[in-house]
Amino acid sequence: MNLGKVVGTVVSTRKEPVLDGIRFLLVRLVDTEGKETSSFVVAADAMGAGPGELVLTAAGSSARQTTMTQNKPVDNVIMAIVDTWEVDGKTKYTK
Amino acid sequence: MNLGKVVGTVVSTRKEPVLDGIRFLLVRLVDTEGKETSSFVVAADAMGAGPGELVLTAAGSSARQTTMTQNKPVDNVIMAIVDTWEVDGKTKYTK
Amino acid sequence: MNLGKVVGTVVSTRKEPVLDGIRFLLVRLVDTEGKETSSFVVAADAMGAGPGELVLTAAGSSARQTTMTQNKPVDNVIMAIVDTWEVDGKTKYTK
Amino acid sequence: MNLGKVVGTVVSTRKEPVLDGIRFLLVRLVDTEGKETSSFVVAADAMGAGPGELVLTAAGSSARQTTMTQNKPVDNVIMAIVDTWEVDGKTKYTK
Amino acid sequence: MNLGKVVGTVVSTRKEPVLDGIRFLLVRLVDTEGKETSSFVVAADAMGAGPGELVLTAAGSSARQTTMTQNKPVDNVIMAIVDTWEVDGKTKYTK
Repeated sequence: MNLGKVVGTVVSTRKEPVLDGIRFLLVRLVDTEGKETSSFVVAADAMGAGPGELVLTAAGSSARQTTMTQNKPVDNVIMAIVDTWEVDGKTKYTK
Repeated sequence: MNLGKVVGTVVSTRKEPVLDGIRFLLVRLVDTEGKETSSFVVAADAMGAGPGELVLTAAGSSARQTTMTQNKPVDNVIMAIVDTWEVDGKTKYTK
Repeated sequence: MNLGKVVGTVVSTRKEPVLDGIRFLLVRLVDTEGKETSSFVVAADAMGAGPGELVLTAAGSSARQTTMTQNKPVDNVIMAIVDTWEVDGKTKYTK
Repeated sequence: MNLGKVVGTVVSTRKEPVLDGIRFLLVRLVDTEGKETSSFVVAADAMGAGPGELVLTAAGSSARQTTMTQNKPVDNVIMAIVDTWEVDGKTKYTK
Repeated sequence: MNLGKVVGTVVSTRKEPVLDGIRFLLVRLVDTEGKETSSFVVAADAMGAGPGELVLTAAGSSARQTTMTQNKPVDNVIMAIVDTWEVDGKTKYTK
């Protein structure tokens, strides 16, 4: 999974019909210190994530293993909201 | 998903027979500001996307989850035309 | 899909038995101008592609969606020979 | 598979229900000398790996081929704890 | 597929039970001239490859399409030993 921060929203009305009702969020990847990188993904939001929240995203066929995304042309999904993480025993982020 | 801009077309007459009728578009990836990068993909067009349009593309097995691409040797598909997106509360693109 | 140029052949006699009869080609990726990059893949040739031809390659599980590669340990396949492509209305390559 | 070192833990209470009970670990990738790189993944822990342990991680749909991760939105899993590895006949790491 | 050279072995006793008996090899990727790069993968050895041999590796779900790796948490497999390859009509490697 990737660790990222929700920084925006992508809106599309013309899309594959099965995608109706799915929210697409812009997730900027962060490093282990929580610092934003220049990489980002657009992910389906299976969690009701809000702006600024740190999340985990799953890619590839694993992105279709949620009730919301099953059998849909979606290759990235937010499947968890992060509460906290630590590296080498030090807390790097707390919600 | 990746965020990209349709910049061209790839034409092929000699191809896997199941690919007949599928249009292949050149999609240049853009950053969160909408600026074109040097990366690009060739994607099957499930949406009737036109030149200059901003689109979302899904890769891998997820690219086969549209009616047009099912069970076909296609690893990238345009599954949505983007209307608008915003980052940190600021609109970065409007169609 | 990736856009690439067939530049060579890889020969292997000791391989998974199901791979017998499949030709493996060296495909160097090109940029949107048709200029060769330093990246390359080894792809199963489902099209009878010849040296110097520009091709499309599909990766991952999509590489197994041709008659030749089905259920085989192959993660890249040439599924189309390119006739021509254009970017921003300008033809960049014609066979 | 990737070779990595367990350096931290990611905690999430709000997540896809099927992920309850799965521990997510921060795994920093290492080079063939065992030196940590700047790349990392968040992986489901199928092995009960501890901090500082060197592990192998499997990505993509292969990450769902363990009893713990089957059919779950997880794209990276720790499926082995490394005892030792050698390169060019020289031992680079021993647990 | 990737073109690589077997440079080492990874040993693990604590692993997913279904992985018992599978040998994990360190494969350093090479360029089209056969020169080793800094990239490497750890691959399941379906071929009985030896140190120094040039091999082809398949990644993702395709890595599970050998008898040895089927349904197992393995995302990279050696599925062929390379005898020779040529680029632009010149032989770059002969076993």
